[in-house]
Amino acid sequence: MLPLRQFVAAARSRLSGVRIVLEDLSDPGNRAAILRSVEAFGLLHVHEVRSSRLRVGSTARGRSIVNGAEKWLTLHQHSDIRECLTSLKASQHALLAAVPPGKGRQPLPLESLRFDRPTALLFGSEAWGISSEALELCDATFTVPLPGLSESLNVSVAVAVCVHFAAFRRREALGLAPHEGDLQLEEVEELQESYAERSRENRFAASLRASRARKARDESQALAPVVVEDGERVGETLGF
Amino acid sequence: MLPLRQFVAAARSRLSGVRIVLEDLSDPGNRAAILRSVEAFGLLHVHEVRSSRLRVGSTARGRSIVNGAEKWLTLHQHSDIRECLTSLKASQHALLAAVPPGKGRQPLPLESLRFDRPTALLFGSEAWGISSEALELCDATFTVPLPGLSESLNVSVAVAVCVHFAAFRRREALGLAPHEGDLQLEEVEELQESYAERSRENRFAASLRASRARKARDESQALAPVVVEDGERVGETLGF
Repeated sequence: MLPLRQFVAAARSRLSGVRIVLEDLSDPGNRAAILRSVEAFGLLHVHEVRSSRLRVGSTARGRSIVNGAEKWLTLHQHSDIRECLTSLKASQHALLAAVPPGKGRQPLPLESLRFDRPTALLFGSEAWGISSEALELCDATFTVPLPGLSESLNVSVAVAVCVHFAAFRRREALGLAPHEGDLQLEEVEELQESYAERSRENRFAASLRASRARKARDESQALAPVVVEDGERVGETLGF
Repeated sequence: MLPLRQFVAAARSRLSGVRIVLEDLSDPGNRAAILRSVEAFGLLHVHEVRSSRLRVGSTARGRSIVNGAEKWLTLHQHSDIRECLTSLKASQHALLAAVPPGKGRQPLPLESLRFDRPTALLFGSEAWGISSEALELCDATFTVPLPGLSESLNVSVAVAVCVHFAAFRRREALGLAPHEGDLQLEEVEELQESYAERSRENRFAASLRASRARKARDESQALAPVVVEDGERVGETLGF
């Protein structure tokens, strides 16, 4: 269990004025990697739209990469992109759709974006990109300029670069230090209490799983499979 | 084969004043993903140090992810980290070592770094990080601040975020537009000729492979495996 001071620090640093919308992302590995970066850089709200028959399965691979990051985020599930984007628009969010370089109606370079007002960044499915319905509802398109000869980035790398830069610009626009967020004081207090609660629930759930696994093993005299949800994947995350 | 104007544009946009040093990176998938981002963001020089018995094998997975990016970079191979870093220091490069947040001697936040002078960013092995020998030779350590509760990023995501931000700052420091680089005119001309040459060699090698595969297939009346080196992996790169 993480110490309370970490929940306090994390809640204080959260940015609610930069949100991510993921439209029909299909690869659970990409989803998990994205949630991990979004959480690490201090964002809070992620909107997941599953308008098609796509369903992201909670595979062991996905769980391992997300590394428990998901439980520190506020995930909003939507079955309709129009409902998602119009509600964000109603709460005064600028809507910016990420497109590959050279595509769309003259996309703005990421580096030129300002984040003085609350903003949602929309990323599309790996195979089909952003739907035309979503594009119509957005205020503008933007891209990560790639002056090299490689014409694309992996979607999880692209989202990480965008989220890092957006968080940097948001803090710059509001005059915040790298570890300060944009939540109101009462929201910060609510969030840190919620974090402590989620951590206890998680601990309880983990001990329940372990005890069930022990029981099953004792009964069958065979090794029961144990999924480590919070484990670090050595060889993937260290060393940087 | 890419059109000549793309080589001209890519050569003009290259930054030689931000370099990457990879010390004993062991995972070929990470290496390939890193080279792809480094190339896409317009860097040119990558120094690979393999001081231990580590050898990065050229696996099919690695080839697929790098997606041909490697051939547009200038790769420098070193067997000794001291030789690599002292030669970079001799050519007036600032040496900055990437460390995880909270580690090392008060690492500088990435966002505070300036790139008015040529700089090399050093990243360590996935398992052991940067060697103490390398740390001693560096001018400073830096980190990507992670205010969230996830304590690490995948190394390829971390390098992509650092390279993107460093390229942004380098262009800002020199007053360059997003598609301008820092090479001298004669270096640009040399590079674009070299790109055209590499492209022709690659085309020749590809046709040679295809003809060998056809021959083997005809002889054995069975399907020969064909490795697509430049093919796009749908479902991984699109959609952003």
